[in-house]
Amino acid sequence: MINIAILGFGKVGSGVAEVISRGYNLICKEIQDSIQIKYILDLRDFPGSPYQDLIVHDIKTILEDPEVKIVCETMGGTKPAFEYSMACLRAGKSVVTSNKEVVANFGNLLCDAARDNGVRYLYEASVGGGIPVIRPIKNALAANEIYEINGILNGTTNYILTEMDKKGKSFDDALAQAQALGYAERDPRADINGDDACRKICILAALAFGTLVAPSMVNCIGIRDITQTDVSIAKKFGGAVKLVGSTKRMPDGTIDIRVTPCLVPPYNPMVKVDDVYNAIMVRAASLGDVMFYGQGAGSLPTGSAVLSDIMDIAKHLKTKQPTQETWESSDSGVVCDAETTPTSYYAAVNLTPDELTPYIEDIEVLHTEDGLTAFIAHGISHKSFEFALAAAGAQVFSKLRAL
Amino acid sequence: MINIAILGFGKVGSGVAEVISRGYNLICKEIQDSIQIKYILDLRDFPGSPYQDLIVHDIKTILEDPEVKIVCETMGGTKPAFEYSMACLRAGKSVVTSNKEVVANFGNLLCDAARDNGVRYLYEASVGGGIPVIRPIKNALAANEIYEINGILNGTTNYILTEMDKKGKSFDDALAQAQALGYAERDPRADINGDDACRKICILAALAFGTLVAPSMVNCIGIRDITQTDVSIAKKFGGAVKLVGSTKRMPDGTIDIRVTPCLVPPYNPMVKVDDVYNAIMVRAASLGDVMFYGQGAGSLPTGSAVLSDIMDIAKHLKTKQPTQETWESSDSGVVCDAETTPTSYYAAVNLTPDELTPYIEDIEVLHTEDGLTAFIAHGISHKSFEFALAAAGAQVFSKLRAL
Repeated sequence: MINIAILGFGKVGSGVAEVISRGYNLICKEIQDSIQIKYILDLRDFPGSPYQDLIVHDIKTILEDPEVKIVCETMGGTKPAFEYSMACLRAGKSVVTSNKEVVANFGNLLCDAARDNGVRYLYEASVGGGIPVIRPIKNALAANEIYEINGILNGTTNYILTEMDKKGKSFDDALAQAQALGYAERDPRADINGDDACRKICILAALAFGTLVAPSMVNCIGIRDITQTDVSIAKKFGGAVKLVGSTKRMPDGTIDIRVTPCLVPPYNPMVKVDDVYNAIMVRAASLGDVMFYGQGAGSLPTGSAVLSDIMDIAKHLKTKQPTQETWESSDSGVVCDAETTPTSYYAAVNLTPDELTPYIEDIEVLHTEDGLTAFIAHGISHKSFEFALAAAGAQVFSKLRAL
Repeated sequence: MINIAILGFGKVGSGVAEVISRGYNLICKEIQDSIQIKYILDLRDFPGSPYQDLIVHDIKTILEDPEVKIVCETMGGTKPAFEYSMACLRAGKSVVTSNKEVVANFGNLLCDAARDNGVRYLYEASVGGGIPVIRPIKNALAANEIYEINGILNGTTNYILTEMDKKGKSFDDALAQAQALGYAERDPRADINGDDACRKICILAALAFGTLVAPSMVNCIGIRDITQTDVSIAKKFGGAVKLVGSTKRMPDGTIDIRVTPCLVPPYNPMVKVDDVYNAIMVRAASLGDVMFYGQGAGSLPTGSAVLSDIMDIAKHLKTKQPTQETWESSDSGVVCDAETTPTSYYAAVNLTPDELTPYIEDIEVLHTEDGLTAFIAHGISHKSFEFALAAAGAQVFSKLRAL
């Protein structure tokens, strides 16, 4: 019998309980043991719930019970989630989490604590909801250097951008619709400003490059300034505007890490990642480009991802747990300057390609019509791109980073 | 030191050797041991190759060496690959394979032999080349019932269809181009007729439903009859024609399994899976739709997938290997009749939607213009669809299964 505890019985915590209940026989068969939720920690009481007898209000009950081997932290926020996770690891319990805020800010400390105590800290559910992405990347990494990761990491903003694209809505109307459907919070800033996507790209970069960049160090631009003009010009040539988190190891060892709205060109499969779906594209040495797509949020998908971590740990309880990875913490020199680091930029302007090429060498024309050229410039910094557009005397209708 | 042997030093076998050589330090760190290719079995000699001293011509050398714990079968074809794999398992060696023909025809016997001998038979590389798909599906399966799998499983036919779409080529010209680039064999029948995709959907169905359907029992239609008309009508509304392998568990317990060209509607992310890329879309209970995308072939991607299996086994050599799964073999009643089982069909006809609806109830109109309606009918069998089109007196410009 494997006893687990759930910290926080909200959307994800209750999803974990439901996924365990639905798949109980399959799970027991796979881990070759039975599994039981022994405690659920929450401030509330849940009278009438089938889980009401499991509710506890004091973390000590869990910390002091040696039968509890695995703790699911599904609280959200860093306080007291970080402190509780740390206490569980130090008490010799493995911790699995869906809490990207904790992983992105304190993952290095929690990985260290897990390793020091011979237990594990797993976080599959912190990125991409139900999409299996952390474990496949870990596996790929075991034999392949990862060069680059790009992801549509936030379902709320992707829903808003999709509504603007498909229904021609304004940003404000699309946001109101997302709020009405419960996809966006009443205070939608964490999504809209890119904070949520930022935490996820920090986690992916830590996984890929072994360095945890603090979210505050990331060049992060949300979607508040995206207009119907941006979206409808992109639509003319089959492109789309998406909020993309990107990270790449530069030749000098620094890390390029950003979250910004991007023009996704029509030939990139991420262009069809719509509504609340997420997708993560990984470029690795021998593998080439691999993409993982699915529901980036939701009680059951995220609960499934939490459960995959529980099962991973459960399967190793009687043998030896694999060693926890180490993440260096970032110092100020690790992240390269987003203004001056070459990447790809997109613009839609009033000039012809011939009028542009004297100023920007490497351009890929996506669309031309009378008085409009939409193009991507490759290998150029934001600073140089701005300068070139000004020098060419371009009237700019839309300007974004490009994938 | 973990000793492995490679059977067949062609494209995939040499890819395995190269991926091990490139990632050697990472691999040793991950498996906490060193790894060595001790033998390479091939008919040829490879003089001058850095691997020439490892070449052997007799399987007995490998079978009789107790130091060899893991054998990579990358031979292709069933003879002698099946016999050799069986002999290795019986000699207490785990086998990993990229050989879909062997897995699709004899996977049940090989899984049984692995289980009986306390070793493993893994086949990540047999579907989707370098895309991590078998292992994530196994993980998902451990807690989720899988309802349905659809995949673009063959890179060669996808390249041909993409050329027909993007460049307006005829089928014959696109095939010739694929042959010139080495994507298609001189005798391209295994790809064009759908045999390769068929083997892969059999493997995915066995994984998902526990029953190995013989490839000969699958309703399999290749792309030879796809015309520029099919492709260009689909293109009008942002759709695409793709060769899709599909499998689904029916309410009565039978398995719907098919390989046919399909109309992929514009809102399905598989519509952007172009060139030699593959994608596998899985629908599972709690997870919803999850898609895996990447290079479905190639020496290094496929070699990486083989290596992921080698590492999985290597990590468990000192503890206990997970139990090998069981696949039932199919009898004639397992596969449902493709003619009469309801699914979705697409047609482009000369009638208006109003002229169609008296004959076909549930239609989704994708495109209309003067004298042309493109639509999908849901929940209809092929037989009924044909009958309805005839009854409506439709002139049919294009007709395909629909995703």
